Amino acid sequence: MRFCPYAHRAHLVLDAKNIPHHTIYINLTEKPEWLTEVSPLGKVPALQLPKEEGNPSLIESLIIAEYLDEKYPEIPLFPKDPLKKAQDKILIERFNAVTSAMYKVFLGGSEAAPGALTEISTGLDIFEKELNSRGTPYFGGDKPGMLDYMIWPWCERSAMLKYLLPDKYEMDKERFGKLIAWRDLMINDPAVKVFYLDGETHAKFMKARRENVHDYNMLVNDAKRQRTC
Amino acid sequence: MRFCPYAHRAHLVLDAKNIPHHTIYINLTEKPEWLTEVSPLGKVPALQLPKEEGNPSLIESLIIAEYLDEKYPEIPLFPKDPLKKAQDKILIERFNAVTSAMYKVFLGGSEAAPGALTEISTGLDIFEKELNSRGTPYFGGDKPGMLDYMIWPWCERSAMLKYLLPDKYEMDKERFGKLIAWRDLMINDPAVKVFYLDGETHAKFMKARRENVHDYNMLVNDAKRQRTC
Repeated sequence: MRFCPYAHRAHLVLDAKNIPHHTIYINLTEKPEWLTEVSPLGKVPALQLPKEEGNPSLIESLIIAEYLDEKYPEIPLFPKDPLKKAQDKILIERFNAVTSAMYKVFLGGSEAAPGALTEISTGLDIFEKELNSRGTPYFGGDKPGMLDYMIWPWCERSAMLKYLLPDKYEMDKERFGKLIAWRDLMINDPAVKVFYLDGETHAKFMKARRENVHDYNMLVNDAKRQRTC
Repeated sequence: MRFCPYAHRAHLVLDAKNIPHHTIYINLTEKPEWLTEVSPLGKVPALQLPKEEGNPSLIESLIIAEYLDEKYPEIPLFPKDPLKKAQDKILIERFNAVTSAMYKVFLGGSEAAPGALTEISTGLDIFEKELNSRGTPYFGGDKPGMLDYMIWPWCERSAMLKYLLPDKYEMDKERFGKLIAWRDLMINDPAVKVFYLDGETHAKFMKARRENVHDYNMLVNDAKRQRTC
């Protein structure tokens, strides 16, 4: 599903590691019948491996990400040191507090804010502090690593807050100085660029979703409309 | 917490890999103040690493398990092959359907059954089928691997069903032949034995918990009572 942040994670890893792949987007409200063959619970992302015996498929974004990192070690994304790797995984888990609060605002709008906005900020404090203590532009050091990519889908989507909330929410420049600098760098990362959508586009999809319209083909339809103009 | 199935996972890995460690049990309803220093969300298990610089701690049972497997590779528990490893991780994730249904019965008793019992059986069908297709006594092959240990805490606790339900629930011998044989082998595994409690003991803790009594020191108190008799 083109707008799914978990599927986005898989794309980022595939692109960061230059792994050739073919993408099939799914309509998640009217799922194709074959979907459960590759994804038993009908979720995305699912990664089918046609070169492996039996044409197996993997599910769960973090399991897919770690599999790709182990199978294609040329461009490593997780730290080699088991402790540093485990610490990055814990931070990925702890980012769940941010993502769940973000979706409260995305779907609930102003009614969910400011409670949910406070939750987002409190969750992000941990990551601001972490970037500060690491003293590097990215969580992964001089270039993005797995932690950077695993949290990016929601950071990219945070840009829609100013389109979804009446008071044009933006991140506090004092409180989140490091994270803002990180975000500006991430937007220019080659793997991020491949799959990047701006805040306005994400907001357009989300606004439709709030009305229970799942406009999965929005990008394709918008492009068609432009071509016929 | 002595009766926590997630903490149980960490113990199984430590014992299976013969890693020297010291255990501190936690009262989870009256948490010690220092707990958030090692476990920011106040959860168990938490693994403190006094030999590492800065005395860091890890949380989340699966992250701890994989860290230990990478840091102490002498007795490997996950398959070496990235695909097989990812497939085992997916099965560990899918076991969550069984654990959540089990806790419905553990805490909700007869009122939750038979709906939840059906959920348990449907969830276990996947694992019966998997053992059958692997054709080995354990999921890990000729000895238990990470998948065996990660699902074991709930399998051990399933023995309390016959003490918690009036109709003395037992697993269908036809439907779950492989899993029953596996369970009988697992009970005799050295790492399982170290931390093993029988169904009656688990049931005693759970019955108290249903009455909102969290008898974390039950084993210690029972032992004291026996000594003074």
